[in-house]
Amino acid sequence: MKRTSFDDMKCSIARTLNLIGEWWTPLILRDIFFGVRRFEPLLHHLGISRNILTDRLQTLVDHQILERRLYQERPARYEYVLTERGRDLFPILVAVMEWGNKWLADSGPPTELIHQECGQVVKPVFICSACGQEITRRNVRARRSSDNSMEEGERLKKAPRANS
Amino acid sequence: MKRTSFDDMKCSIARTLNLIGEWWTPLILRDIFFGVRRFEPLLHHLGISRNILTDRLQTLVDHQILERRLYQERPARYEYVLTERGRDLFPILVAVMEWGNKWLADSGPPTELIHQECGQVVKPVFICSACGQEITRRNVRARRSSDNSMEEGERLKKAPRANS
Repeated sequence: MKRTSFDDMKCSIARTLNLIGEWWTPLILRDIFFGVRRFEPLLHHLGISRNILTDRLQTLVDHQILERRLYQERPARYEYVLTERGRDLFPILVAVMEWGNKWLADSGPPTELIHQECGQVVKPVFICSACGQEITRRNVRARRSSDNSMEEGERLKKAPRANS
Repeated sequence: MKRTSFDDMKCSIARTLNLIGEWWTPLILRDIFFGVRRFEPLLHHLGISRNILTDRLQTLVDHQILERRLYQERPARYEYVLTERGRDLFPILVAVMEWGNKWLADSGPPTELIHQECGQVVKPVFICSACGQEITRRNVRARRSSDNSMEEGERLKKAPRANS
């Protein structure tokens, strides 16, 4: 089932997941964030099929999330490095990992992130870069942009605050 | 293609996406976060098929992300409310939306989150709850937990810092 419709939706969540939500892609990105950048090590680490890995990497290159960089000339060998657009995905992986570690790791988190500034296990908190206060579902509301179709915004206006 | 293997992986990203990465699920959660909690409005807003919506809601209830609550007795009608586990997914949605708004919204973000504390558009920053400093890919490292199999950790040790 191809989900082309997601990309057409006026929703940044749908559009983003259309790009990075494909099976395996977040795990490929996880490995690349942590330094596994070459095809064979990725293949080995992920336990993924060669053709799926090739396909996912190509999609990420096509969408400027990864760049191929030559690291060996004969034979030509490439590694995959994150672009700025790709590096910006880091908070998503951190947020996903945090939730999984908290709620799905019955026998303890398989892997934890250590904040090197303080040596503690990362417990990320989202703050607002404008005012420095925490961002919670209770203190944000959704606003549609004025230059877009009203469909999404009209519906969201009916429930302007997250209050469930 | 059923991705049962993701759930078995010793990785909180894989396990989490196994649960919430299913097609449509993040968009269902988005709507519920913003107050669309009943079956018919969800169906209408998402433009999804009845059986897929039923299936996704049931999965979310089965995994204690949503709770069904009776809001009308005759006929019995339910709404879906987020559990604590479900509410904890909010930072993931914020992170995904932020990335999509920044990188995929060529004609401007379809919807933006407004931080009611300061009235500004939310530009979330992850800070460490222990030390208050920003969390970036450059200042965290992955550490496998000592009580787990070494497979994941051994590999990550080879590249202990995010430095791409």
